Formats: sequence, structure tokens, C-alpha cells
Amino acid sequence: MEEQIDSVGKAFVDHYYHLFDNDRPAMSSLYQPTSMLTFEGQKLQGVEDIVTKLTQLPFDQCRHVISTVDSQPASVTGGIVVFVSGSLQLPGENHPLQFSQMFHLSPTPQGNFFVLNDIFRLNY
Amino acid sequence: MEEQIDSVGKAFVDHYYHLFDNDRPAMSSLYQPTSMLTFEGQKLQGVEDIVTKLTQLPFDQCRHVISTVDSQPASVTGGIVVFVSGSLQLPGENHPLQFSQMFHLSPTPQGNFFVLNDIFRLNY
Repeated sequence: MEEQIDSVGKAFVDHYYHLFDNDRPAMSSLYQPTSMLTFEGQKLQGVEDIVTKLTQLPFDQCRHVISTVDSQPASVTGGIVVFVSGSLQLPGENHPLQFSQMFHLSPTPQGNFFVLNDIFRLNY
Repeated sequence: MEEQIDSVGKAFVDHYYHLFDNDRPAMSSLYQPTSMLTFEGQKLQGVEDIVTKLTQLPFDQCRHVISTVDSQPASVTGGIVVFVSGSLQLPGENHPLQFSQMFHLSPTPQGNFFVLNDIFRLNY
């Protein structure tokens, strides 16, 4: 069970940042109308608002490098919390930015997960 | 609703780090048998294991300074996720350590919250 949670967390994180770095509009597949994103303190809700925010960030290309992924089961109904730390390389910046991000993944009736809670912060 | 979630999150964070910095054994009141803590990658479960880990950390006194607290409702059943960034000053260390921590708070039948999920990472 514990290993399964860890592999789901890691697989989700790989998928999430792969889409973020290569095909941001496709991230709409990760969210649902109840999804929430708090990005550097700004609160957004719902697929459209969240994906608009992510696609309109003031850089076109970026590369996430993941340092740690910690996952835990979040409820008896199959939710998972995932906590990520890593760095973000932006075009034209010499130094990567450190960040932390948490996700609360909620199961869908189809046996997949969607992002119910998403909180992102840069670490200064 | 949103303001209420924010104030619960902030009140919890104040309470949590006040106990951590002043009375670590009393943190047993925050956890229940189903609680999980992942501390720098080490997984613990249950009140006793979690509080033993926290009280046996290799420093007696410390001081948390909170930079950001972001909270979101985590489910229709009243859970809340809280994401914290800040710094940790240890005795004898010149420089504070940056950290991030997330909590998933779950409601009790008595109308309080306990920590169901707790993940802590230092940010290097």
C-alpha cells in the first residue's frame, strides 16, 4: 500500500511537470471544476481559471527539476497528498528558483486522479 | 467561507509552532492514531511515534518564523489543507534554515481538527 502511494505520487509528479514544461494547455486534463490552485498567494478555482493562470505566466519555456517527492494516503476514500520540492529554471535566468508545491489528488469514478488542491510557493 | 478557511489555517499554524517551540510533548494533542508524519523523508504514523520523533530531534530549543500560510478547503467533509513556508532558527546556528511544511487537517466529531497528514522538508 505504502509503495503504491509512493509510485502514484511520483508518476503524477513526473506527468504534471512534463506537461508544465512541454504542453501547458494540456494541463486542463489534470483539473476539474472543484479544483483549487493557490499560486504565490493568488487563489484560483476551476479548470479554466487555473489553466489560464498557468498558461499566462510571464515565461514561455521552463524546466522543473525535482528534488524530493513525499506522498501519503489522505483519506479512506483514496485521496493522496503529494509534497514536492525542487527548482525551476527560467529562460534568461542564471540561477534556478527553488520552489515547493503540494497536491491533494482525489480519485475519479474512472479510477484516475484529479488535482483537488494545488498550492505553489517559491522559496526565497 | 474562504476567509474562515484562512483564519482556521492561520490559527492552527500559530498554535502548532507555538507548541513546537515551547512545549513539544503537548503536540500529542494535535495528532490521532491515523495521523501520518513524513519528516525529511522519514515516515511515521500514530501519536506516539510522531511525538517521539518530534521530541527527540537533536536540538532542545528552536524558533519558527512563518513567512507564508496558504489554506484551502480539502473536501466536502470539512478538511483543510495548509501549506507553510518559513525559517527555523536553531541554537548555535548563525543562519536560519528555510523549510516548507504541509498539513491536512481533518475535522473531529467535537468540531475541532486533528492533523491527518503532515509533511516537512528543509529547503536547501
